[in-house]
Amino acid sequence: MTFATPNQPSAYTWEATNEEVAARYGIPVEDIVRFDLNTAPLPPDLAQRVMAAGQFHVSLSEYPPADYRLLVEAAAARYGVGTDELVVGAGADEILDVIAKTFLAEGSRAVIPVPTYAMYRVLTEQRAANAVLVPRLGAAEGYALDIPRMREAARDAALLWLCSPNNPTALPEPDGAIETLLGLIEADATTDGRAAPIVVVDEAYAEFVGRSLAGLRFAHPNLITIRTASKAYAMAGLRVGFAVARPELVARMNPIRPPGSVSTVSVTVVTEALKDDTLAASNVARVIGERERLSTALADAGWSVGPSVTNFLLVDLGSVDRAAAAAEALLQRGLVPRTFPDTHPLADHLRLTVRSPEQNDRLVAAARDFEAGAPAS
Amino acid sequence: MTFATPNQPSAYTWEATNEEVAARYGIPVEDIVRFDLNTAPLPPDLAQRVMAAGQFHVSLSEYPPADYRLLVEAAAARYGVGTDELVVGAGADEILDVIAKTFLAEGSRAVIPVPTYAMYRVLTEQRAANAVLVPRLGAAEGYALDIPRMREAARDAALLWLCSPNNPTALPEPDGAIETLLGLIEADATTDGRAAPIVVVDEAYAEFVGRSLAGLRFAHPNLITIRTASKAYAMAGLRVGFAVARPELVARMNPIRPPGSVSTVSVTVVTEALKDDTLAASNVARVIGERERLSTALADAGWSVGPSVTNFLLVDLGSVDRAAAAAEALLQRGLVPRTFPDTHPLADHLRLTVRSPEQNDRLVAAARDFEAGAPAS
Repeated sequence: MTFATPNQPSAYTWEATNEEVAARYGIPVEDIVRFDLNTAPLPPDLAQRVMAAGQFHVSLSEYPPADYRLLVEAAAARYGVGTDELVVGAGADEILDVIAKTFLAEGSRAVIPVPTYAMYRVLTEQRAANAVLVPRLGAAEGYALDIPRMREAARDAALLWLCSPNNPTALPEPDGAIETLLGLIEADATTDGRAAPIVVVDEAYAEFVGRSLAGLRFAHPNLITIRTASKAYAMAGLRVGFAVARPELVARMNPIRPPGSVSTVSVTVVTEALKDDTLAASNVARVIGERERLSTALADAGWSVGPSVTNFLLVDLGSVDRAAAAAEALLQRGLVPRTFPDTHPLADHLRLTVRSPEQNDRLVAAARDFEAGAPAS
Repeated sequence: MTFATPNQPSAYTWEATNEEVAARYGIPVEDIVRFDLNTAPLPPDLAQRVMAAGQFHVSLSEYPPADYRLLVEAAAARYGVGTDELVVGAGADEILDVIAKTFLAEGSRAVIPVPTYAMYRVLTEQRAANAVLVPRLGAAEGYALDIPRMREAARDAALLWLCSPNNPTALPEPDGAIETLLGLIEADATTDGRAAPIVVVDEAYAEFVGRSLAGLRFAHPNLITIRTASKAYAMAGLRVGFAVARPELVARMNPIRPPGSVSTVSVTVVTEALKDDTLAASNVARVIGERERLSTALADAGWSVGPSVTNFLLVDLGSVDRAAAAAEALLQRGLVPRTFPDTHPLADHLRLTVRSPEQNDRLVAAARDFEAGAPAS
């Protein structure tokens, strides 16, 4: 376990834009493909249909409805929760920010099992709270939570940032693990005579495994799960995310969230998408089929591809130098991988989004070329 | 007009939704008109045209471009500033949040001349910083800044939240006042051997007066001005706002802002709107014409209407009780005014948005009925 105590607020490192990659590698911008953002190759047709119809929940000259009522109703029906159990945000990222603002005071502690999504640490440190980093178990154990160390770290923490299925390791926590952890830290809190820490489970990739831990909120009212329209719903550009929690926690978060940060266009489109029974399911089916094909093809090309239940793959290149060389080979072909800094536990890995068949074929060809030592044409 | 009283101190009090007003007053929701939000009656036709065309800066399945490049270029051209002098946010509200996060540490002080936009205090207190409230001069002095008291309060402040033209007083600071204040507090800072505080000037209503203080940023590099697409551009529902500041301040804010909180649809539509030379100007001309007509008609009805350079009017009802009675009379007719809490210096006033001729006519008729003691039909 390590403490990160920076003297400056932490900053999110932006990804290079398509234009920046194109300029650096001398590639036409339309040939750039993002394998680094875990997005979908196309948005659902429904999005353009709703926009062209031009019937939004309120006029675009007005602010969005402060309660996002129709969106909340659609999300409640889709996720099987109450309308008083939802908080709406401009993407899951704003939900994370609202959680940090609501529950992390200066000097408090937030536990982060690493490696995981970088934003948890950024937002913790922007609150001048302390990020307590707990290493996950290794690849052989599916990068699972180290339950005893998490329990110990939770003992004086205000909040735990969990993510299942986890980004960038592409796997969920083992069945029952988070429920076990919730029980242990609540028992410890009772023993210690303090409130149990808030436990956040980011479920951005929940649709790809077809289940959510939100049902645990009744037995564990300190649980907040997070959902998004960016992944299975294929609309990252619309910026809509949700927190699911018991009304008591929603009542604490709602006054902190901005009254109308989500565009009325996004509100209206995502409402319709959530009411569609097949939209996410068909995208998930497509991703799973392509994921297995891509995984096999990359393995055939000589790459060590880890198991995945998400829309991305984690590839072990064997060394930091080889990962950097592979990333460079991909970039020279306009294919943008997610890389990890030299000090990161996955610095010898690349993370690669499952995209369209044609885009995935370009990735496989690049991997083959790399293994064959062929330069970019 | 607000119904809910949040139970946490640093919370924004949401406006009641149309549905809530309609239910409370037994009025069809389509008859509700918002005179409380300083919005426009209709969005520009351009918005629907851009959405129907379906050509966005990037696919909606991808995240918005992290640098919002085309939007920044259009805003830079429109505002006459450099592309390295802009920060983009999900409405001016997110810009205010990014400023608070960047420049307000726990225990620091932020000076707020009151009355003004409520969000400055909310965001200051969400940072656990101290809001130092300095009363403005009275109505006879146009609610102008009390320069000596502002200067004194700035002496140990990290930041000043100014707004010109000011909401809810509808008037700009007198010519040269903010420049004078900037000079004084910088001289004091030099004397005291400390950095000058950041001075924020929220210019949400700048287009209605046809000028901006952004030009002062060269002589006063601690200045941040704020612009929005919500008011003169009539697209509050798209949530796009900007900070304008010297590159040194932009470099401090940019790492704190979320990498992509603004929807790609909003990014694309507002880019086109900013490139249109007549869009804001024609809306401003419409508002100014209606403002003079509405102001005269309300005065003829017996109401004391203050001068305004914005898209709203401040009406002095003479007493808190009379303001409450007038608000109730408007609400019974489906017309939602902005009221102020009993403890507010403008508790005996209402703030009323200039809307369409037909909507304004309903407001005038309601004012006449109220003065005549007539109940809502």
